[in-house]
Amino acid sequence: MNKADIGVIGMEVMGKNLALNMESRGYTVAVFNRTEQKTRDFAEGPARGKKFIPAYDLKDFVASLSSPRKIMLMVKEGTPVDGFIEKLIPLLNKGDLIIDGGNSFFKDTIRRNEELGPKGILFIGTGVSGGEEGALKGPAIMPGGQKEAYQLVEKILTDISAKADDGAPCVTYIGPGAAGHFVKTTHNGIEYGDMQLIGECAWFFKNALGMSAGETADIIAKWNGGSDILRSYLIEITADSMKEKNKNAPGYIVDIIADITRMKGTGTWTVQSALELLVPIPTIASAVFSREMSQDKDLRLKMSGILKPGSESVPSGERSQLVDIAHDALYIAKISSYAQGLALLQAASREYKFDLNLGQIAKIWRGGCIIRAQFLDEISKAYEENPALPNLLAAPKFSEFVNKNLWKLAKFIEIAHKSGVSALGMASSYDYIMQIASPVMVSAQVAALQRDYFGAHGYFKIGGTKDPAVVKNAQGKMTEFHTDWMIEGRPEKEITK
Amino acid sequence: MNKADIGVIGMEVMGKNLALNMESRGYTVAVFNRTEQKTRDFAEGPARGKKFIPAYDLKDFVASLSSPRKIMLMVKEGTPVDGFIEKLIPLLNKGDLIIDGGNSFFKDTIRRNEELGPKGILFIGTGVSGGEEGALKGPAIMPGGQKEAYQLVEKILTDISAKADDGAPCVTYIGPGAAGHFVKTTHNGIEYGDMQLIGECAWFFKNALGMSAGETADIIAKWNGGSDILRSYLIEITADSMKEKNKNAPGYIVDIIADITRMKGTGTWTVQSALELLVPIPTIASAVFSREMSQDKDLRLKMSGILKPGSESVPSGERSQLVDIAHDALYIAKISSYAQGLALLQAASREYKFDLNLGQIAKIWRGGCIIRAQFLDEISKAYEENPALPNLLAAPKFSEFVNKNLWKLAKFIEIAHKSGVSALGMASSYDYIMQIASPVMVSAQVAALQRDYFGAHGYFKIGGTKDPAVVKNAQGKMTEFHTDWMIEGRPEKEITK
Repeated sequence: MNKADIGVIGMEVMGKNLALNMESRGYTVAVFNRTEQKTRDFAEGPARGKKFIPAYDLKDFVASLSSPRKIMLMVKEGTPVDGFIEKLIPLLNKGDLIIDGGNSFFKDTIRRNEELGPKGILFIGTGVSGGEEGALKGPAIMPGGQKEAYQLVEKILTDISAKADDGAPCVTYIGPGAAGHFVKTTHNGIEYGDMQLIGECAWFFKNALGMSAGETADIIAKWNGGSDILRSYLIEITADSMKEKNKNAPGYIVDIIADITRMKGTGTWTVQSALELLVPIPTIASAVFSREMSQDKDLRLKMSGILKPGSESVPSGERSQLVDIAHDALYIAKISSYAQGLALLQAASREYKFDLNLGQIAKIWRGGCIIRAQFLDEISKAYEENPALPNLLAAPKFSEFVNKNLWKLAKFIEIAHKSGVSALGMASSYDYIMQIASPVMVSAQVAALQRDYFGAHGYFKIGGTKDPAVVKNAQGKMTEFHTDWMIEGRPEKEITK
Repeated sequence: MNKADIGVIGMEVMGKNLALNMESRGYTVAVFNRTEQKTRDFAEGPARGKKFIPAYDLKDFVASLSSPRKIMLMVKEGTPVDGFIEKLIPLLNKGDLIIDGGNSFFKDTIRRNEELGPKGILFIGTGVSGGEEGALKGPAIMPGGQKEAYQLVEKILTDISAKADDGAPCVTYIGPGAAGHFVKTTHNGIEYGDMQLIGECAWFFKNALGMSAGETADIIAKWNGGSDILRSYLIEITADSMKEKNKNAPGYIVDIIADITRMKGTGTWTVQSALELLVPIPTIASAVFSREMSQDKDLRLKMSGILKPGSESVPSGERSQLVDIAHDALYIAKISSYAQGLALLQAASREYKFDLNLGQIAKIWRGGCIIRAQFLDEISKAYEENPALPNLLAAPKFSEFVNKNLWKLAKFIEIAHKSGVSALGMASSYDYIMQIASPVMVSAQVAALQRDYFGAHGYFKIGGTKDPAVVKNAQGKMTEFHTDWMIEGRPEKEITK
């Protein structure tokens, strides 16, 4: 029997579909699962008659692979990944490669690299996005690890990856160590943001504009048309699922779906990483907070009997204009959210030496993954034109749109708020733009003043009311001051350390 | 020589002032510092002629204490605390007590309790709030640890604590283990929120209403008058510091203070803890994000040349009405922010078995600490009247005000946004209320639908368009469904696990 080109461990739906995808591109694939029966079901089911080598013992599995061995773990993140790595180590040789294709926390990936490195076992932590269907037909793949490890599987990964509209494969070498898993986690955070913003639009259409789910679906379907700037997979499936009728009663299925959004952790990890790196990502955080609030259904049922925010109705004559406003508002909110996510990647790249190429990352997100969209092509081009962009919002294509249409996002928030609709994500996107565009954040001046007053924490100064740059000393250090607020005359002294 | 009643380690300003406070209440206090000279300076300076026992060796320090020994660490959180604990262990007997009075991370306090418990050494982790002046004259104190440990120092802590307007001491037994440090961290998170909201008001007055810092200070000073609902220490010092003139040029000092708000970590810890406990605290998070953004001054200077959000001016005839609106908007935003912080305490109390009494905690925050305010008396009463309040916003006193005046917060955000002022904190407070008051969050329905579509994650159902309660099966479990979106007819099946 021929040896297998690659092995897949984990016969849940993602593992099975990735294995089928590999086989369909001409590879021989060894498969293994902790519970034998799942491997058997696969072997006798979808794998029957195809180039698979099912194994019922980990030794046989490893023995069935050609050298250097390439083993892809498609098991639950956390303990299961560590468990398989531990069992594989004694069976592998130097130069063999383990690929973790789950949604692992990037610090686990750092640790696993540190454990495997000295043993000479190569390790890739890779994001795989696209859900079940993507895994089968072509996902976006975000592999991080040693460059030579990537080269061992570059061809396979490229073959199984999604292809963007221009035919480019949705995979690239992301960077060393945990770069791939960090980028995948951030991708998911951005996905949370997109979902939140689209959800707020739907809420707006229903409660502010009084539209049915079907009417909303029709509008959102238009937003997925041809060259529309919002065209994307999430917009497409929102329209397609919201138009679905309730099978048991009049109306639409969305109207009787419980308002409980669960989550598996990657959105939370994104916010936690951002907090560690001091990167503000309020829109993505708003999505996590909203999911948390959605889960506390009992509390909301109680509180809805007590809190009665008023709700002004929108004159029907204004509906169509507000639909157009919502379109551009959503686009700007989305730009702001992506700017936050990409700023996080930039900071992580500096801190963890990931050496990320934001243009390339946006490029491979154009196909296969959940956030795939025409929009990512624009982002990719923006970074290609200017790799030193200080922030996505600085790209002329986006800044010009924002400058011209930002009032629409303000209008959306205003009408939403008046109509009793939460616009936490939309407002977070708006205020992020307000803050980043402020040469002087007055709120921060006041907070610095307060901190010096109650805690003697010191403050810096700017040149003057017309000169927002921070005053520095001859050594280029920001000059620091403290006022003694408790003493008559309130003397100020320099305390630069 | 008499033995000391208590010992203080760490002669930085907080340690010195706490020691002076203790001595002033009649206690004999042993003092020690890692660097001898600091102890010497203290002994020969402010401690001269008073009941202090300075020690220059840790053994002598411990020997100078009466049994059971009570030692308060006032050193930097992290390694310094661990270092001193390690050095103290061999010098102490069973039943002696170490008190960590720094801003320690609560998980460190859990760990230290686990280390010291088996050795029979008692341990208190306590929050001490009030800054330098509070430490000297009377801080709010939040001690957590063994009940018997608290009893050993109850009298000293009560004597040195701040007293609220009604004379009640601002100290109480918070709960076991890390309860004290958790509560102090959350206190600081709430403080971040207050500062952010006040700062946004000042920004609004300056950029939307065109007021000088002096005019703003005058308005805010009025908000601190008599029985005003906003009356608080932070409001008082904001008015007092904003009216301070620039000594070197016309205008006010706040106008030339750099818009850079630094932080030491407790705000970030609050958000991290909330993420772990699935408690949405968007207002407190908005304060952390805004501080982060404030620190990236170079980016903002660059971006301010590119992004040009428009700025409508407010007709001068509307100014005084908007000042009144800002007052009530700030109050509601503050209620929302406190509701978030207290919800976090409630969740932590459940998860970590802190057995917190929210009414008591609000009561001891009425004096000494940075967030001290009349408002906390109202909160305390609300929990005394109904200890089972599902959320602070459910208290009639607050819900009635919110129901009547919530439109003012919406108006504030609307005008701020139109004027180019970020209202991230205000909007977060508003949208928290919108969400918690929603029997059905349409955004969450849509997100649940999307997740089922792209990831087969399943969804629950509600009774119908008129019945927002979640459908449960005979066992009281929420009934779960999945639609097969890829199959003709889109069959739905029950998948309750």
